[in-house]
Amino acid sequence: MSSRKSLYQLAKAAKLSQTELSLIGTDKKNKILMAMAQSLRKNKKEILDANAKDVRVAEKKGRSKAIIDRLVLNEKRIESMSSGLSEIALLDDPIGHIEDFNRRPNGLLIGKMKVPIGLVCIIYEARPNVTADCIGLCLKSGNGLILRGGSEAINSNIRIYSALNGAGIKNGLPKDSIKLIMDTDRKAVDILLGMSGIIDVVIPRGGESLIKEVVKKAKVPVIKHYKGVCHVYVDENADLNMAENIVFNSKVQRPGVCNALETLLVHRDVAARFLPSMVRRLRSVGVEIRGDSFTRKVIKNAKPAVEKDWYEEYLDLILSVKVVKSLEEAMAHIRRYGSMHSDAIVTENYDIGMRFIREVDSACVYINASTRFTDGYQFGKGAEIGISTDKIHARGPMGIRELTSYKYVIFGNGQIRN
Amino acid sequence: MSSRKSLYQLAKAAKLSQTELSLIGTDKKNKILMAMAQSLRKNKKEILDANAKDVRVAEKKGRSKAIIDRLVLNEKRIESMSSGLSEIALLDDPIGHIEDFNRRPNGLLIGKMKVPIGLVCIIYEARPNVTADCIGLCLKSGNGLILRGGSEAINSNIRIYSALNGAGIKNGLPKDSIKLIMDTDRKAVDILLGMSGIIDVVIPRGGESLIKEVVKKAKVPVIKHYKGVCHVYVDENADLNMAENIVFNSKVQRPGVCNALETLLVHRDVAARFLPSMVRRLRSVGVEIRGDSFTRKVIKNAKPAVEKDWYEEYLDLILSVKVVKSLEEAMAHIRRYGSMHSDAIVTENYDIGMRFIREVDSACVYINASTRFTDGYQFGKGAEIGISTDKIHARGPMGIRELTSYKYVIFGNGQIRN
Repeated sequence: MSSRKSLYQLAKAAKLSQTELSLIGTDKKNKILMAMAQSLRKNKKEILDANAKDVRVAEKKGRSKAIIDRLVLNEKRIESMSSGLSEIALLDDPIGHIEDFNRRPNGLLIGKMKVPIGLVCIIYEARPNVTADCIGLCLKSGNGLILRGGSEAINSNIRIYSALNGAGIKNGLPKDSIKLIMDTDRKAVDILLGMSGIIDVVIPRGGESLIKEVVKKAKVPVIKHYKGVCHVYVDENADLNMAENIVFNSKVQRPGVCNALETLLVHRDVAARFLPSMVRRLRSVGVEIRGDSFTRKVIKNAKPAVEKDWYEEYLDLILSVKVVKSLEEAMAHIRRYGSMHSDAIVTENYDIGMRFIREVDSACVYINASTRFTDGYQFGKGAEIGISTDKIHARGPMGIRELTSYKYVIFGNGQIRN
Repeated sequence: MSSRKSLYQLAKAAKLSQTELSLIGTDKKNKILMAMAQSLRKNKKEILDANAKDVRVAEKKGRSKAIIDRLVLNEKRIESMSSGLSEIALLDDPIGHIEDFNRRPNGLLIGKMKVPIGLVCIIYEARPNVTADCIGLCLKSGNGLILRGGSEAINSNIRIYSALNGAGIKNGLPKDSIKLIMDTDRKAVDILLGMSGIIDVVIPRGGESLIKEVVKKAKVPVIKHYKGVCHVYVDENADLNMAENIVFNSKVQRPGVCNALETLLVHRDVAARFLPSMVRRLRSVGVEIRGDSFTRKVIKNAKPAVEKDWYEEYLDLILSVKVVKSLEEAMAHIRRYGSMHSDAIVTENYDIGMRFIREVDSACVYINASTRFTDGYQFGKGAEIGISTDKIHARGPMGIRELTSYKYVIFGNGQIRN
């Protein structure tokens, strides 16, 4: 177990090293990223061996299939981590850009220069690919990084980290700027969360209980994503064929992720026409339907949805369905039960569509498209470090631009204030 | 004392009411602001009477002159609060603007729409003008607001709030969207700081101890400003006449505020030429000089500066002075002792100036201008709700634009994900 003192030393060294990192030019950062990508491929065997050890331990401990699926690496997944790093090299470097440059009446030139946030801390669970993604994104955006992965993936994480950090340092990465905490004791997290003035932001990635724990304990800023209780509302004016495809895609294309559909809302005037064939198609691939009383009039053998269902992020082939009598009722439902992640309307009515866009206050609000598009790559931003459901700093997919802050730069020629 | 339950009820009602407020158009918001400005003038007598009561209590309690100066209102100050509200009506309404609209290869149109943050909570001390400023700024940016002022100003705050809120509601302000907590018990603050999921951001305004207390206890996001330990670095290539004016203005024009100069750094090659006349001018208006050993060789009768001085926000006619041998030493000093608020260099050397701009990571970095310009009005942003020295969400002067978040709005025509 690391002592409080050694964790503080590590974090302070990372903070200091970050100042150096923040001044490295784009070409050099890209060179480091490419070297890291290559090193990952070169160390494939060692990483797979370490991962096999983690998987064995997890299996012995009787971890769930979902956890083991997230944990397990193979050649393809390592290849994908590696190409992820090369792709980050191709993204525009946001650092140093100046926005909103304007001249004041007294001649002062004032602009906002993009700068790294500083020292970022990621607290995550079983996914070892997070290690490589976060290193790539923080490096490119000039941020120092402290990684604290879960105990399940510790051997994989150490190997991935060593491969990337080693290749990075050989190519000019400031030596303390990226750190992996090897200590998997929970107390280490508590100490990190108390490092006000050293760590500039914590981004927890994992299940709701991890996030809640982090929020409860953190004395440093946190950007978070609780859960994705996403809705599609099929309006009375929807193209029902389009609606069926969007609902099917949102629910089924990858049900285990945060932007998948959890609750379908249908206007009562189209419920009888829309639901039977929709439900048939969903059931054909194994989706369980839980409906409100109106839904169960149309879909006779649906399970009843209880109050708890409307709050639920199933992350599974289960869909709760509610019939509503108006746009207002649909929006009120989303406001009450949703998680402000991704919500969509399907409608051909311009005014209703625009009202939904304006009035639903979720990170991503869709008209006539699948909720599954909430993703850094799909939005054209490249790799993401997470999806924020907060209102502060960043919302929705967070890429390298969202890992920046800014400072005002002011060019004068002797101005003083009257 | 309000119960926990009643505070939660008030906050939840404000949250609900904010949804309504967020949808009010610009014209109506401006009309409400103008009505508030007028109501403040109309209720001048009642406000001044209430304020006199607060001042009497503070005097009886032996509060410092500085606190009483912040607390006291007069006709001019009420007029200035009132015109502040009318000026906010003239500012551009940021809400609903869409930025970075772009078309994805699959035809999806994706943009970022500016939206209010949600429910803002301001915790402040003795300044009753904060009540009016914050109401104006939050209203214009569509945010719900919970105000929790200090006990010193409670009578003034209640009167100001009643005047503004009454006029607002008469003109269509959603009735629970702006609330003043009348309970001045500290426990009320603790309860507010725990309202995760209800309050979207807390902005504390006041002394360092208040801010630290808030950061320690908050379970909700905080945007803060600790203190302003601002520096001017006079480089060896400075126009010494310009440097003298900038240093004098930064230190003396209003020494009690956060953007005033606290530590002067001077390159050793110009110290002997620059310091004597600089110090003479500063001393002529009563500034006390505390110097490092080199400074005291040039300025014989200066007090010695001790380690503690370099961290100190004097907010008074005291200046610490250090002679450095290079730009690097100056920047290292700022990094170590500064508060990342506002720091300036005076130089005629292009490369040195640009290095200072790039490498000093403060909210506002100046070349050849007074640090006193760090202010919403001076930056052309209008009234400010505070100055952030955080790296998250907003840095420097926070105006109405910084009181916004955004959501992604996505317009499709049936797109689904492959």
